[in-house]
Amino acid sequence: MKNKFSFKVLHTCKYTGARVGELITPNGIINTPVFMPVGTRATVKSLSPQELHQVQAQIILANNYHLYLRPGVDIVEAAGGLHKFMGWDKPILTDSGGYQVFSLNSLRKLTEDGVHFSSHIDGSKHFFSPKLAMQSQRSLGANIVMAFDHCSEYGISYSEAQKSTIRTLNWLEECAKIELKEHQIMFPIVQGNFFMDLRMHSLRETLPFAKCGLAIGGFSVGEPTKIWLDMLLKMQEHLPQNMPRYFMGLGNPHGLIQAVARGIDMCDCVLPTRIARNGTAFSSQGKIVVKNNKYKADFSPLDPSCDCYCCKNFSKAYLRHLFNVDEILGGRCLSVHNLRYLINLMTNMRKAIYNNDTVDFIKTHMEISE
Amino acid sequence: MKNKFSFKVLHTCKYTGARVGELITPNGIINTPVFMPVGTRATVKSLSPQELHQVQAQIILANNYHLYLRPGVDIVEAAGGLHKFMGWDKPILTDSGGYQVFSLNSLRKLTEDGVHFSSHIDGSKHFFSPKLAMQSQRSLGANIVMAFDHCSEYGISYSEAQKSTIRTLNWLEECAKIELKEHQIMFPIVQGNFFMDLRMHSLRETLPFAKCGLAIGGFSVGEPTKIWLDMLLKMQEHLPQNMPRYFMGLGNPHGLIQAVARGIDMCDCVLPTRIARNGTAFSSQGKIVVKNNKYKADFSPLDPSCDCYCCKNFSKAYLRHLFNVDEILGGRCLSVHNLRYLINLMTNMRKAIYNNDTVDFIKTHMEISE
Repeated sequence: MKNKFSFKVLHTCKYTGARVGELITPNGIINTPVFMPVGTRATVKSLSPQELHQVQAQIILANNYHLYLRPGVDIVEAAGGLHKFMGWDKPILTDSGGYQVFSLNSLRKLTEDGVHFSSHIDGSKHFFSPKLAMQSQRSLGANIVMAFDHCSEYGISYSEAQKSTIRTLNWLEECAKIELKEHQIMFPIVQGNFFMDLRMHSLRETLPFAKCGLAIGGFSVGEPTKIWLDMLLKMQEHLPQNMPRYFMGLGNPHGLIQAVARGIDMCDCVLPTRIARNGTAFSSQGKIVVKNNKYKADFSPLDPSCDCYCCKNFSKAYLRHLFNVDEILGGRCLSVHNLRYLINLMTNMRKAIYNNDTVDFIKTHMEISE
Repeated sequence: MKNKFSFKVLHTCKYTGARVGELITPNGIINTPVFMPVGTRATVKSLSPQELHQVQAQIILANNYHLYLRPGVDIVEAAGGLHKFMGWDKPILTDSGGYQVFSLNSLRKLTEDGVHFSSHIDGSKHFFSPKLAMQSQRSLGANIVMAFDHCSEYGISYSEAQKSTIRTLNWLEECAKIELKEHQIMFPIVQGNFFMDLRMHSLRETLPFAKCGLAIGGFSVGEPTKIWLDMLLKMQEHLPQNMPRYFMGLGNPHGLIQAVARGIDMCDCVLPTRIARNGTAFSSQGKIVVKNNKYKADFSPLDPSCDCYCCKNFSKAYLRHLFNVDEILGGRCLSVHNLRYLINLMTNMRKAIYNNDTVDFIKTHMEISE
């Protein structure tokens, strides 16, 4: 682990695998478990850095694939890196773009060296290898950069999954050769699709590359929740104790708290901001579809127990009006609220873990409909 | 003038008609000349009340026609009025909807009693009379409500203009009969199209109804600037000294400062926020079309002399990127900036007027391209 990064577990729940920890980075301390808002194109959709500070986001994500295409990593590097470019001085994590190369490009061509793909914007031809993906992330300058992996689909055969798992491990070796900047560290990613022996193989082989953190990828890609919950439980005792474990692409409240109970420390997802822009809000009374006619004259906040700007200032009736007339402030308000909701959820879960109350906490929150 | 409203001129420029004044309302003091951001549907597009406070907006507009259709004035009244509904505690002005009834409805039917029109949203049938428009504005609860007028087009004949002018005066009499709430006052509107004698007639007949302020409508509707500038100059000496004069629908910097030099105290327009969403920013170096390729690696702010959140935190290169990838934060940032630009312009003009430097101030600012 580079000097500028360190992690310590402050408490582990007596009855579950849930941990409270502290990840120190050159851009600030992250209290774990943590939910990380996603700012794919160097902006968390519709929100300003000021608002991200207000919801107490501790770290945000950006995406290597999208930023490589637009505006180009050279521009971001010339700006002084992502932090300066987007005006966010707290920690940033970049996803390598592996997931996007595979999910957004039907015309991709996979080789053992990397992936040839066409831009989803203008069809231009590009190539990502582990080396190139890491160099690109080095230029972007996030604190945590992700290894370039092959995230395979749910439902493929064992032999396909095996090939993909091995490919990810081979690529990881290449990724690890790239020297990053002083303020950066790489998280390797465990894959293995939905075959337990491949998952365990991937975990064993990946561990030596995990210097400051370990990610688990390829879950929450469309499979029933029970599948990843079971696999995570089986992996749990083999996960490293002394570093954060990052579950990629998880953002629904039920999933989050169950993953944390199985020892996960970090999660991210576009879900809270995406459903916000469609008019759906999390709340302690269950999900709220704010355009619903029943909120027409409901002058209470989305969630009376929430301390966000939206709940402190606006009623459901006003928010409903904003969505009805297509005003941007509506999606902004719900984005602020949904992020604050998940961040509060993690803060409260940290307290519950400290008190060894994780099981009760989960029971209570699983009763909230989503 | 109701007790809760008062206006005083603090200084008049020695060499022009420009005035510095102070309008006291039940929701706060407005320093004039003032530019008023427009929040048609109870939201200044893309911005939060927090941001409006940050750009130091003193008063904002909302629109009776739009709010009457959606969400309905009953909802806003049940919320406790517009201030509470939208979370804005400073002064609010509502336009009567006269302008919108005429500009948005091709199927309208005009009678001397009012206007029958079809909703531009769902085609439903509605009727606005002076009485109904005022009652509706009473329910919305803005501090300043506008008389229901007939804003006629540029280019119509003298006899059409005459009819329209008289209609507006007749309607004004009806409007004046409606009792408003304690915290409200009505501004009558001078019309008269582009015929000087009609303008003067309208002004003379309107003056008795002006208790706390007077509006000039029907200008800046597509005619060459010189036309309204000349007419305003001729009207100037006949305008009341002891109340604010509001020029409706003006928001370009050159127009604003020239109107103020002719004794105007209040202006509003959607222009700054509309061009912002299209990627155009005002600046002390002239207009900036931020998507322009030349800003690709320009890491300086939109306007180095601006103190807004956007200029303090983001570069042209970042803003260009946001517009290029269609991210909402781009339009938000430019909206903040353009409003702050006009508000700073008015603040600086107040200083210049105090120092009797209005002429130099105008000269300097007319050199900035727009």
